[in-house]
Amino acid sequence: MVAKEIYVAVIGAGGVGKCFLSQLEALSQRFTSSKISLIFVSRSKKVLYSPKYTPLSYSNLSNTLADSTQEPLSLPKIIEYLAAAPAKVVLVDNTSSQDVADAYPQVLSKGISIVTPNKKAFSGSYKLWQDIFSAASSSGAKVYHESSVGAGLPVISTLKELVDTGDSVTKIEGVFSGTMSFLFNSFAPTEGSGGKWSSEVAKAKELGYTEPDPRDDLNGLDVARKLTILARLAGLEVESPTSFPVQSLIPKELESVSSGEEFLQKLPEFDSQMEETKVAAEKEGKVVRFVGSIDVAKKEVKVGLEKFDKSHPIAALKGSDNIISFYTKRYGSNPLIIQGAGAGGDVTAMGVTGDLIKVLERLS
Amino acid sequence: MVAKEIYVAVIGAGGVGKCFLSQLEALSQRFTSSKISLIFVSRSKKVLYSPKYTPLSYSNLSNTLADSTQEPLSLPKIIEYLAAAPAKVVLVDNTSSQDVADAYPQVLSKGISIVTPNKKAFSGSYKLWQDIFSAASSSGAKVYHESSVGAGLPVISTLKELVDTGDSVTKIEGVFSGTMSFLFNSFAPTEGSGGKWSSEVAKAKELGYTEPDPRDDLNGLDVARKLTILARLAGLEVESPTSFPVQSLIPKELESVSSGEEFLQKLPEFDSQMEETKVAAEKEGKVVRFVGSIDVAKKEVKVGLEKFDKSHPIAALKGSDNIISFYTKRYGSNPLIIQGAGAGGDVTAMGVTGDLIKVLERLS
Repeated sequence: MVAKEIYVAVIGAGGVGKCFLSQLEALSQRFTSSKISLIFVSRSKKVLYSPKYTPLSYSNLSNTLADSTQEPLSLPKIIEYLAAAPAKVVLVDNTSSQDVADAYPQVLSKGISIVTPNKKAFSGSYKLWQDIFSAASSSGAKVYHESSVGAGLPVISTLKELVDTGDSVTKIEGVFSGTMSFLFNSFAPTEGSGGKWSSEVAKAKELGYTEPDPRDDLNGLDVARKLTILARLAGLEVESPTSFPVQSLIPKELESVSSGEEFLQKLPEFDSQMEETKVAAEKEGKVVRFVGSIDVAKKEVKVGLEKFDKSHPIAALKGSDNIISFYTKRYGSNPLIIQGAGAGGDVTAMGVTGDLIKVLERLS
Repeated sequence: MVAKEIYVAVIGAGGVGKCFLSQLEALSQRFTSSKISLIFVSRSKKVLYSPKYTPLSYSNLSNTLADSTQEPLSLPKIIEYLAAAPAKVVLVDNTSSQDVADAYPQVLSKGISIVTPNKKAFSGSYKLWQDIFSAASSSGAKVYHESSVGAGLPVISTLKELVDTGDSVTKIEGVFSGTMSFLFNSFAPTEGSGGKWSSEVAKAKELGYTEPDPRDDLNGLDVARKLTILARLAGLEVESPTSFPVQSLIPKELESVSSGEEFLQKLPEFDSQMEETKVAAEKEGKVVRFVGSIDVAKKEVKVGLEKFDKSHPIAALKGSDNIISFYTKRYGSNPLIIQGAGAGGDVTAMGVTGDLIKVLERLS
C-alpha cells in the first residue's frame, strides 16, 4: 500500500496543545498507513503555515511560532485555507474557544475532519450539536472528542460502543472533575477527618488543581458540560448545560465578589455550611462527594453533592482521579467502570492523539 | 455517499455466536456507512451459505442452520469461498478452536479481515502472533480481538491506544477471570468470613460460573492466555502462556483424577491448604485474590495468589467482575482502571460487534 498524505492543522499550542504537538511529532515518525504533514499551527495572535501547504518542521516549533511574523488569519480565512488543500485535512482544536466550536459545522461541511478536547462544541446548544453531526454525516468528515470528558480515559468511546452495539444505557454516574475529586478526597476522606473546606480549596489552588479563580470549578458548570455531552450520546436531547439542576458550591454572598483572591479570603466565613454537610454524611457512616448523574429512563440529569458509603468506588477515589460508572441492560447490577486521571496536559493530549489515529485509519 | 456492500461470515453459533448474530441483525438495520450482508454461518457440522454469495435471512436463522443439509466445508474450502467473494469480507470467529486460529495468517493474507473473541490465536506461539500481524499488515486486512480479554470491557483498545499514542506502560495488574473473581469474592470476602474453598467451588459450578470440569478454570491457563495477549501488546515477546510462572489451584493429588465430578468429591480433603492461605492474609489485615500481573520493565509475567489490603480495588471487587489496572508513565502513581463483567454471552458478543463496527468503518 502507498501511504497517502494527510494534512494536520492545529489551533492552540498552550498546555494541552504543546503536549499534543510533541505526541504528534512522535506519531508521524511511527505511523505508516499515511504520511502525516503538519501544515498549520496557531496560538493566540501567532500563526505558522505555508500558503503552498509545505509541511512545517517540528524542530524548535514553539519558538518559531512565538517569533512568527506571519499575518494572523481570521477563522473564516483558516477554513478557506484548509478547504483548498490538495489532500484530506484534520483540524485539531486544542482551544476551549466557543468561536472555534461554533465554526465546526462549517469546517465539517467542507470535508475537514475534527479532533478536539474542546467541550464547548458538544455542550453548547442542542442545535449546534445537531448541526455538527449532520454536517459530518453529509460530508463524510469525521469528528472525535474523547478528551472532552475524562481527558484520555476511554469514556466517550466506551459509551458510543455501548450504544452502537445495541446496549441500553440506563444510568451514568461519576466524579467528572479532577478538581472536585481532589477537594472532596481531602475534605471528607474515608479515613481520618480531613481539613476545613476553605483550607482545602486554598491548597488545591496553590497546587494548581483549580482554575485561576476557583469559582470557575466550584460553580459546577465544567461538570454540567461533561454531563450534557454524555447524556446526549446516551440519547437524551439535553438543551444546554444550564437546562438541568446544577448545585453550585459558591456561597451566594460570594458570587459577585470581584476576584478569586477576595473569594478565597472570605470563604472561611462560610466553612460551617460545608462542615454541616460533611457531618450529616458521617452520621450515616458516609462521605460526601460532588457527582454528576444521568438517569436515562427518567430523562434526569443532575450535578451536585451526594452521600456515599465509604466502601463505594466513588468514595474510595484517590487524588484527583475521575470515575465513571455505566449501568446498562447487558452489564446488569454491576456497572462498567472506568477510573483514572481525568485532567493533565499529557493525558488530555493522549485522548486527542488517540482520536487522530482513529481518523487517520478511517481516512487512509 | 453510496453504501458499499461488505460480507460477513460467522464461524460458531453457540453461546457467544448466538448473541452475536442477534446483535449483527440489529446492527445491519442501523448501520448506514455500508451494507452488511451475512453470507456464511457454520456451527459444528452444520453450514449455511449460498455459492453465489446471496445474503442469508436472519429470520429463524438458528433453526434453518440446525436443519441445514448443505455439505459441511473444510476450513481451506471456507477460506477459498470467502477469498473468491466479489466484495470485502469480514470473518467472525466465535469459536475457541485452535485449528481456526492457526488459519488466521492465511485468511488475512487473502485480504479477509477477522474479528474474534478466540484467545487461542493471540496466546499461542509467538510465531503465530507474528504471522497474524505481518499477514494483516501486508494485505491491509484488519484483525481485532477485544473480547479475548475481559469480554466487552475496553481492555485491548485501551492498551493499544496507550501504546500507539506513545505512553510507556510499566505494569498491568488485575483479576482476569470471572470464575476466579466469583470464587475469591465468596471465599475471602472483605467483610465476613466466607465459606469453605471446596464449597465455594461446588457452588460456582452449580451456578454455571465454571467450565464443566472446574479444573479448567483452576489451572490458571485461561488467565495465563489473557496475560500473554496483554504482555505482547505491551511489547514483551512472551513465547507462550506456559513460558512464565502460573500457579495452579488444583491440588497435585487431584490433577489426574478422571472427572470433574470426582475432583469435586475429593476437593474437601484439601481445604486446609487454601484455608491456611486465607488465614495468613487475614493476619496481615488482607485478603487473598487470584491475579495476573505484568511488569514490563522487568519483563516478568506471573499468575497466581496474592494478598491485598481490603481497601484495594482488587479486594473490593464484586460478583464475577474483572478489574484491570494499567500503570503508565503518563498516568503516574494512580493507574487507569477498567472494571466490570468479564464474561457472559451478551457482553462478549458486544466486544465482537464493537470490533466489527471498527472494521466496517475502516473498510467503508
